[in-house]
Amino acid sequence: MTGFASLAELHDACLHLPPSHPGAAERVANREATLTKPPGSLGRLEELVGWLALWQGRHPPRLQHVEILVFAGNHGVTAQGVSAYPAEVTAQMVANFEAGGAAINQLAKTADAQLRVTALALEEPTADFTLAPAMDEASFLAAVATGADAVSPDADLVCLGEMGIGNTTAAAAIAAALFGGGGARWAGRGTGVDHAGLARKQAVIDAALARHAAVLDDPLMVAAALGGRELAAILGAALAARRRSIPVLLDGFVSTAAVAPLARLNADAVRNALASHVSAEAGHRHLLDALGLSPLLDLKMRLGEASGAAVAVLLLRAALACHTGMATFAEAQVSNKSP
Amino acid sequence: MTGFASLAELHDACLHLPPSHPGAAERVANREATLTKPPGSLGRLEELVGWLALWQGRHPPRLQHVEILVFAGNHGVTAQGVSAYPAEVTAQMVANFEAGGAAINQLAKTADAQLRVTALALEEPTADFTLAPAMDEASFLAAVATGADAVSPDADLVCLGEMGIGNTTAAAAIAAALFGGGGARWAGRGTGVDHAGLARKQAVIDAALARHAAVLDDPLMVAAALGGRELAAILGAALAARRRSIPVLLDGFVSTAAVAPLARLNADAVRNALASHVSAEAGHRHLLDALGLSPLLDLKMRLGEASGAAVAVLLLRAALACHTGMATFAEAQVSNKSP
Repeated sequence: MTGFASLAELHDACLHLPPSHPGAAERVANREATLTKPPGSLGRLEELVGWLALWQGRHPPRLQHVEILVFAGNHGVTAQGVSAYPAEVTAQMVANFEAGGAAINQLAKTADAQLRVTALALEEPTADFTLAPAMDEASFLAAVATGADAVSPDADLVCLGEMGIGNTTAAAAIAAALFGGGGARWAGRGTGVDHAGLARKQAVIDAALARHAAVLDDPLMVAAALGGRELAAILGAALAARRRSIPVLLDGFVSTAAVAPLARLNADAVRNALASHVSAEAGHRHLLDALGLSPLLDLKMRLGEASGAAVAVLLLRAALACHTGMATFAEAQVSNKSP
Repeated sequence: MTGFASLAELHDACLHLPPSHPGAAERVANREATLTKPPGSLGRLEELVGWLALWQGRHPPRLQHVEILVFAGNHGVTAQGVSAYPAEVTAQMVANFEAGGAAINQLAKTADAQLRVTALALEEPTADFTLAPAMDEASFLAAVATGADAVSPDADLVCLGEMGIGNTTAAAAIAAALFGGGGARWAGRGTGVDHAGLARKQAVIDAALARHAAVLDDPLMVAAALGGRELAAILGAALAARRRSIPVLLDGFVSTAAVAPLARLNADAVRNALASHVSAEAGHRHLLDALGLSPLLDLKMRLGEASGAAVAVLLLRAALACHTGMATFAEAQVSNKSP
């Protein structure tokens, strides 16, 4: 995957995408109907297997190579006092990921997934977007390309997560720009700001919307002006996965906001993405509703790091184990439903 | 664990139970506060670890020996046409469990749990409870004892599930008897009855409530008159686990209805039990609400067999992996929250 030379080229790529594989999904449904259980009684577990097949184009689908990609970035907007933690925590947490001490390390092990962490120019925070666009076109496209390059061509499933002090403010700004409603609707407590901090976040978002009013009708310009490098990388990774027909698990509010510009450009561009969970971060439920996504889990998590997506991988493994391992009515000599 | 000689003795056992272990839960909370994440950001995963410790009386809690107990029974009430499947499917599915072909076999493997299936006198269905009590006192107490004996004294966690054609009708009758509302409130489609079948279920439940009106204020008599052997065994297993301070994961509507008489006698008797999921079976949500239980998962499952509980074990393993494996702020040299 090479990068995109311009926003126009990226925009064009979002509009020309390969189809899904309904034939493989149909083979899933046909087999599910023969397995020793009432039809549909495994609920969303059955849907998950169909979804994997739909995008992998393979029956049965496979979860041998599950990839968890975590992107990290720093945000100039932290100067406005929008986070409960100092900005240096981003780099410290990247070191923690590398040392194996973070939540996502334990969850990746539990989910038998491969974790890859990509830090994006942490020493060079994006601009404070109340004053200027967070990124210029070149920086934005470079981050998108970094994200796209992080996706292994042979991945069976990609989980997209992030780390970045200040990035729930960026996510809320993107959501507000794309769907309206302002800071009051989209700002939340993030890592745990107090009441005054929440009020600052709301004001910062509203100031950013006013400053960048001229670009709010262009989703990719919104991603560049109000986002962050790790969000741009997630957008790039999601698009790369879509172009290769690899299913994607989104994580929480930031991960979902990062791909929202894609969805706004072309709903089909994120049809391979499932919402792993709904976060406790206030704006996430609104954003999932706006995107028509129904989360698999609701565990009041709000950590990021792809932690919710990693937990959802466990559900996918359970679903696939049932689909491939169960006996059929005929094999088990179990009487099927009364006529 | 020996059996109970009478309903009075069983009743007495439900009222005299050992305490939980708040000290162990406090040690969980203390460690959680030091781990490299915003406080509370793993949401219910953090609560789950505290709950395990509260009942195991151990820090860190342990999930080495996770037991999935599935009880099977047959129901005379199937003569009334309340199920989409013929009654012989109960025994056929027990054979399927033994051969490893059912959903729960795959899920138990995925959850690294030990599955034990206990068939209770399948050749001798309970009485049709529209005509007579499903079980007499001796049969009921024998099934309770079978369930209690199935719990390993050294289990770290017990999942309670069932198989029994006709048993959502029994579960609905118990729920109606304990919480009011009649067949219209509690009957659901079970394995998939049609509109006429659903109407028959409702009528059957209302007929049973009328016939057994004299015992409806005695929860254990309700369990005997309207339940089934597999439900009685679940009640016995849950009580045995409570007496040994072993945490319990309930499964769906039938599993929850089976322990509801315990809860009605003494709310403290089921405080060690968590609702793994909310089933698509209509009455389950009402019943969880009545019992004050908040389900971990909502995946539209409605299979039984402890399938929802087995999936929830995956969440417990993820939660425990984070708790035991994560680095503290001090260990990872990550800056903690701004003062």
